[in-house]
Amino acid sequence: MSQTPAYDLLAATQLRLYHFGHLGAIVHWDRETNMPPKGIEARGAALAELAALMHRMRTDSQLRQRIERAEQEPLDETQRANLREIRREWQQANALPEALVQARSLASSRCEHAWRTQRQANDWCGFVGNFRDVLRIAREEAELLSQRQGVSRYEALMDRFEPGMSCAEVDRVFCDLKAWLPALVRQVEWRQAREVVLTPVGPFDTSRQAELCQRVTRLLGFDFDAGRLDVSTHPFSGGVPEDVRLTTRYRDDDFQQSLMGTIHETGHGRYEQNRPRALLGQPVSEARSMAIHESQSLSFEMQLGRSRGFAGLLAPMLAEALGAQPAFEPGNLYRLLTRVKPGLIRVDADEATYPAHVILRYEIERALIEGEIEPEDIPALWDEKMLALLGHDTRGNFRDGPMQDVHWPAGMFGYFPCYTLGAMYSAQWFAAIRRATPELDARIARGDLTPVFDWLRDNIWLQASRWTTEELALRASGERLNPAHFRAHLERRYLS
Amino acid sequence: MSQTPAYDLLAATQLRLYHFGHLGAIVHWDRETNMPPKGIEARGAALAELAALMHRMRTDSQLRQRIERAEQEPLDETQRANLREIRREWQQANALPEALVQARSLASSRCEHAWRTQRQANDWCGFVGNFRDVLRIAREEAELLSQRQGVSRYEALMDRFEPGMSCAEVDRVFCDLKAWLPALVRQVEWRQAREVVLTPVGPFDTSRQAELCQRVTRLLGFDFDAGRLDVSTHPFSGGVPEDVRLTTRYRDDDFQQSLMGTIHETGHGRYEQNRPRALLGQPVSEARSMAIHESQSLSFEMQLGRSRGFAGLLAPMLAEALGAQPAFEPGNLYRLLTRVKPGLIRVDADEATYPAHVILRYEIERALIEGEIEPEDIPALWDEKMLALLGHDTRGNFRDGPMQDVHWPAGMFGYFPCYTLGAMYSAQWFAAIRRATPELDARIARGDLTPVFDWLRDNIWLQASRWTTEELALRASGERLNPAHFRAHLERRYLS
Repeated sequence: MSQTPAYDLLAATQLRLYHFGHLGAIVHWDRETNMPPKGIEARGAALAELAALMHRMRTDSQLRQRIERAEQEPLDETQRANLREIRREWQQANALPEALVQARSLASSRCEHAWRTQRQANDWCGFVGNFRDVLRIAREEAELLSQRQGVSRYEALMDRFEPGMSCAEVDRVFCDLKAWLPALVRQVEWRQAREVVLTPVGPFDTSRQAELCQRVTRLLGFDFDAGRLDVSTHPFSGGVPEDVRLTTRYRDDDFQQSLMGTIHETGHGRYEQNRPRALLGQPVSEARSMAIHESQSLSFEMQLGRSRGFAGLLAPMLAEALGAQPAFEPGNLYRLLTRVKPGLIRVDADEATYPAHVILRYEIERALIEGEIEPEDIPALWDEKMLALLGHDTRGNFRDGPMQDVHWPAGMFGYFPCYTLGAMYSAQWFAAIRRATPELDARIARGDLTPVFDWLRDNIWLQASRWTTEELALRASGERLNPAHFRAHLERRYLS
Repeated sequence: MSQTPAYDLLAATQLRLYHFGHLGAIVHWDRETNMPPKGIEARGAALAELAALMHRMRTDSQLRQRIERAEQEPLDETQRANLREIRREWQQANALPEALVQARSLASSRCEHAWRTQRQANDWCGFVGNFRDVLRIAREEAELLSQRQGVSRYEALMDRFEPGMSCAEVDRVFCDLKAWLPALVRQVEWRQAREVVLTPVGPFDTSRQAELCQRVTRLLGFDFDAGRLDVSTHPFSGGVPEDVRLTTRYRDDDFQQSLMGTIHETGHGRYEQNRPRALLGQPVSEARSMAIHESQSLSFEMQLGRSRGFAGLLAPMLAEALGAQPAFEPGNLYRLLTRVKPGLIRVDADEATYPAHVILRYEIERALIEGEIEPEDIPALWDEKMLALLGHDTRGNFRDGPMQDVHWPAGMFGYFPCYTLGAMYSAQWFAAIRRATPELDARIARGDLTPVFDWLRDNIWLQASRWTTEELALRASGERLNPAHFRAHLERRYLS
């Protein structure tokens, strides 16, 4: 009697997890887009049941032996990459006792839920009460993961989102940024102060905005036969690769938020829609990391979406959807889309000031996780760093200060660096695309976006998790993460 | 060490099943309302995985012993009723080997999927090819269930939808109907032929129809904080009690279909929204049966929704939503809503001719399951019965004949009787409501619907599955199923 290869057994388990994950993804999307208020408790219980089931599957005692056996089996390169990812997921799931997983889920649900009202009320003290629990559990989790993986506590948490990334590497990149970015921002501000920019005159009908966003999403190649674009309070990209659910939000006094937000989410969505079909269900088919994911949304929103050529494509679409006005003239629209202005809110930041928001959070959350500071130390540090990095006085404004993001109440420590790493990768990808297609800008201006889509599809989307992030970057662009491309991009766009 | 009571273990399993059922219900709703076409395969695989998980939970070998132990434990009346329902579910799940459950799911998926195009093409031969498999598996299932339960094969299938209902009882009721209903229909037709009824003039803007349906659903007490009303090709009521999802469909040449369909689904929805809160998650909190469920939708759509008083409430709402016109005058609207006309299509039938559609299907599907006829015998039987019961010649028209319903391709044999049993129960409930509130019609006409809602809530909704259907009817109305109320209702509404 021949024994089923251990690899096949592992792959079958992964496929079952994929199916259960499908249910969770759709139900989660529904919660954010459709669920009426009284559904919240039953929904929470159902999702917790699913999470418990999947955690049990991932910590099944048979898995260790199967992984070890599979590592001795003859496997091809893809299978070997898959097994590497299976082991990584298994390690992460098994580092944590079930009680801690549950405590984490409860503490972050409670903190996040209360945060939604506390933030409105600028209630820092109330927030810290719950946040202390979230932090305590995250520190415990970091300690357990760090022991297993032999990396620092913060690195262990960051590894959940950005496998293989070290603090040394983040420090290298952020140090470099801190050295030149503030001066660049001041220079851009000085230049832009002399520009004349017409402000678009609203109101902008939200159903016309919705039509515009659908049209732009289509132009960006999103497959509406395998996905949707809907409305939620906090925009996100969810669903499953076969049925990607993008969301945005509409305000009638501002069309940029919905439009640029949609373009951002479309970048995430196309990555998901173009993961390798034949491997779906296996970890090797997953998006490589959150920095790589953000590099796709930022390739769409920043590199492509705010380019002069793309502004020229958007201009007539805007005029058609919202009515012609001088502010929608291509040159003015480009100036609008590339406005640099240090502000308080990360999600509203332009691409030049965004990294400052991330650096500040990274420095604070890393010190929190390593136990160097406590929650009560956050406000003073926040105020000091905001003043130094962005020139804003934030004292007493917790709402638009350390309480502005969902990440901390939700316990997502280690995610923030991915945004800026993603911005850097996206500049690196576009440098590579430009090398392959020197006439890129002219083609974008003509509405021919295929050089961008084809390159991203072949080099990023279809590669999924075959390679480590570093090797993915090497294969795609000929070099590992190189922040010089981000600097060159900003200088070309804002100072040339 | 004290042992956990077996009852508590069973209740915990039921709660887990309830949570998983929540995921299935929302994801199923999403499939019908939101899912883009390319999502179908992945969605099917995810739902099949969930079905397999729930089937494994229901057939867990520990359950038999736990049920037997729990039956010896000291339980209160509600727990005892819950245990009775747990045993019933367990018996049904365990009668079928997993291979048969899977084969059933595959055969009915295939048949139903092909049926959607075959029906359009009037392709009876193509349909029978797949249907033969569905029937073969249903017969096998009926045989296994029948051996366990000691009832006939068709009864065993019907029991899934209408526990405790016997063919003798259905025959008694349907025999009676056949004796007086055809003559009544002819009499009504003769009377109505002399009435002047103005036909509403369209088109009827579908977004105004949607607003109207929302408003009427609200008037009918549906809690929009715990549910939604959306659009799907085939209207249904789904979701979970804490978050009920109703659907309808809009055509701009007809407002009656969306409006009366919505009122129908609202009846189902209020039953679900008002199941006993404290027991949710346990089978004793489930709706009693499908006939009782249909008795709620028909209480709303037929008894209340087409009453003269309710037509008076609808008239100004229609005029406001769709623009005033003579056809929306209350008297004319009432005549429109109570039009009797034998037709080919069950779902479009009025309440007087509807039972004929059900009787015909019951007689055919019962003979199919008992092995007395084969699929190729259906058309001749259909034609013969349509001619006898409704006076229509249906030869060669399979599309609007035996291929019109989803039930047979989906393998839902035994469901059809529930529609007419439900109609009878709803007449019986309204007779009881009238006894309790003699001024009912005047109150409805004034827009005071509380006598209806309060009676249904206390006597049906909150009773859930505490009692057998027969005892529920006895407690609610003082008698078991009594078709005389249905006849009296039709005579009062259509012949007095």
